Amino acid sequence: MVSILVIGNGNVAFHLVKQFNAIDKIECTQISSRKIESLPSADVAIIAVSDDAIAEVSSQIDTNLVVHTSGGSHLNSLKNPKNKGVFYPLQSFSKSKEVDFSEIPICLEAESDSDYDLLEKIAKLISSKVYRIDSKQREIIHVSAVFANNFSNHMFSIADEICESNQIPFNILHPLINETVKKLSDLAPKEAQTGPAVRNDQETIKKHLLLLPDKYQLIYKRLTESIQNEH
Amino acid sequence: MVSILVIGNGNVAFHLVKQFNAIDKIECTQISSRKIESLPSADVAIIAVSDDAIAEVSSQIDTNLVVHTSGGSHLNSLKNPKNKGVFYPLQSFSKSKEVDFSEIPICLEAESDSDYDLLEKIAKLISSKVYRIDSKQREIIHVSAVFANNFSNHMFSIADEICESNQIPFNILHPLINETVKKLSDLAPKEAQTGPAVRNDQETIKKHLLLLPDKYQLIYKRLTESIQNEH
Repeated sequence: MVSILVIGNGNVAFHLVKQFNAIDKIECTQISSRKIESLPSADVAIIAVSDDAIAEVSSQIDTNLVVHTSGGSHLNSLKNPKNKGVFYPLQSFSKSKEVDFSEIPICLEAESDSDYDLLEKIAKLISSKVYRIDSKQREIIHVSAVFANNFSNHMFSIADEICESNQIPFNILHPLINETVKKLSDLAPKEAQTGPAVRNDQETIKKHLLLLPDKYQLIYKRLTESIQNEH
Repeated sequence: MVSILVIGNGNVAFHLVKQFNAIDKIECTQISSRKIESLPSADVAIIAVSDDAIAEVSSQIDTNLVVHTSGGSHLNSLKNPKNKGVFYPLQSFSKSKEVDFSEIPICLEAESDSDYDLLEKIAKLISSKVYRIDSKQREIIHVSAVFANNFSNHMFSIADEICESNQIPFNILHPLINETVKKLSDLAPKEAQTGPAVRNDQETIKKHLLLLPDKYQLIYKRLTESIQNEH
């Protein structure tokens, strides 16, 4: 049996607690970050709060091992007096959406092997994808995720805006988007690149620039150049 | 029974012919674009050649209805003497990859209702998603598809490059990418936007810019501004 405190009320805390509660070998207690004066004892305290609250919240916790769940924060942003670690589930959570934890990569960091082993034991109870990732690597993953998730979503958003402002339903592009992502399981994205940029099809590029609203012309040019520099 | 000639040897021709041949109500003949001197008669000739060959190839065909399959070309790029149309399957094809045509949107255009009806009859035999799309709308779809497919793929490619150059396997991001796309069936991409840009998290943005190679800093800044302008 592993005893876990989860501190926080956000999306990550919500889904972690839900998942831990479904597992017999875990005893989990959730506590609001505003009520941590008298914490019960536990093997590990997982603080799932916003990045800028990690220092303040952790400084009040004397559980033997305290970990945060943030992709964007260094291990040393923890200010608890005892051992520190990281338990970062690499996924974008929203409360209203069911989550299949078994497919979510869990990135772990600890200062000692025994702490690492404990975190690994917990992570493997909920996911088949457990990685040892240090703070430097986690920073890299975090900025990569901005491209892979936030910026790709913005590309979908621009496509949506262009379609809808011309009375074309955006969902006409869903099968194409699904295929773009499905290809990633067979091919590196660089190898899968198609379109006028990689073909250096200047005529189509010129035509597209004329069709676009001003605000998206510069993005189109920059990304076209970037694809051409890559190939 | 509908008789179809498919002119061309590329990916689109390959997959169309394969699909048509699987359907009893269609009689399909494939012909290389270099051998169109003596074409058999047919209800429609579908020319699936590169955009810049459409005019030249079509000018040699006197089938009653000639259509091209290009998202990026106007109906009037056809130079055949009789009726013109468009039969554009909105998907990115590669020969080595199986295609489920029933999920591919087929965008149709014709000059007369009877031609449209014939194209619709054919399209509905292979796909459940058939749209009437004129040349102006098809141009918009084509430029939108560059964002939704080519540019989003480039975002994955940048993420891949950043990960691999730091000894992190890119597939650690696959579940996040899958989730980004799965959300599109419930939410407009603008509503689904997450990350430091939309939160206006300046500290994280600064940290990310320091981590990035020069060539990707400008793209990061531009897309961050674009997300912030959108919200």
